[in-house]
Amino acid sequence: MAVRRSRITPLRAAQVYEAVLGLLREVGYEALTMEAVAARTRAGKATLYRQWGSKPRLVVAALNHREPLRIAEVDTGSLHGDLYEIVDRVGDEALSRGPVLHLGVGSAILGNPELRRSLRESMLEPAMADVARVLRRAVRRGEVPGDCPALGLVPGMLCSVILARPLLGEEPLTVAEMRRHLDALVFPALGLRPALTGP
Amino acid sequence: MAVRRSRITPLRAAQVYEAVLGLLREVGYEALTMEAVAARTRAGKATLYRQWGSKPRLVVAALNHREPLRIAEVDTGSLHGDLYEIVDRVGDEALSRGPVLHLGVGSAILGNPELRRSLRESMLEPAMADVARVLRRAVRRGEVPGDCPALGLVPGMLCSVILARPLLGEEPLTVAEMRRHLDALVFPALGLRPALTGP
Repeated sequence: MAVRRSRITPLRAAQVYEAVLGLLREVGYEALTMEAVAARTRAGKATLYRQWGSKPRLVVAALNHREPLRIAEVDTGSLHGDLYEIVDRVGDEALSRGPVLHLGVGSAILGNPELRRSLRESMLEPAMADVARVLRRAVRRGEVPGDCPALGLVPGMLCSVILARPLLGEEPLTVAEMRRHLDALVFPALGLRPALTGP
Repeated sequence: MAVRRSRITPLRAAQVYEAVLGLLREVGYEALTMEAVAARTRAGKATLYRQWGSKPRLVVAALNHREPLRIAEVDTGSLHGDLYEIVDRVGDEALSRGPVLHLGVGSAILGNPELRRSLRESMLEPAMADVARVLRRAVRRGEVPGDCPALGLVPGMLCSVILARPLLGEEPLTVAEMRRHLDALVFPALGLRPALTGP
């Protein structure tokens, strides 16, 4: 889902996103209205709909704007380095909160198919595609056999561990714990041994 | 959280659970009240609270009653066999729905800490403990080294893949896909090769 930025300047869009995030904190997802966003930003409601299409899309765009993952450009030269770097960039703060639980969106996400689809298309799928790209580079470098059956499962598995954590435990997820998942599950499943080839 | 069954017969408890599941289908979790459960079952509200403690606990007990996982007694003699059997017993239907999404509980689960804790204590932690027991038996049989770092991560990872699926994809999760996770991620991480030692 590409945001059509042509109609609104990046600065103006950032103001709208700030208003959305503020309203999410104040009233939560369910009670947030496009009217309230329009009122707070002195924008027309029609402009908001033209630019973002719907409330779920606007909310996901605002969350993305606040915390873009910035993992697409990761390229350290080794799969170990790349995956460690990706986990580092996600960071303890985002891991501990869980990407869908913060800012009042949590309770709405499961009951709202459009919000779920927006979140998936504009945050989760791009993040998984970035991890898949890192894995394909490792195959091209000869680090991982191209027919390794774990290749297709690793992006979703890592994403699942992050997403499910708020249901599974009280303790926040950390970068250190994600690194343990890489060392104990991902690298062995890809045929890499951290002790032999790790950074 | 042990349900104190002494005060209510199993038959009576089953009637209460049926009423809860019916109300969940009809009105959803948020709108379900202990009053409505009491009215439908001609039980006293005080009896319900004495027996189950709270609405979240009663709801989780009702969900557990409807679909107990029955994986505790799995013991096929090999780790491959045990984990395949566990995935089979969970089954396509429960996998595709996602254990927390069905029956109107989904949208409430993330926003309600007590419901989340009840779900965790009475469904997720026991299921993960059952998987951990299967892994410990494999260590005792010498199938997996006792210091394998994946041992502590596998139960949560499998649970995460199931729980996160409704956020990650439109396609329902299947037993076949969970078996691919076992073959491609879990067994290699535990040092087992499906092709060499699989059933």
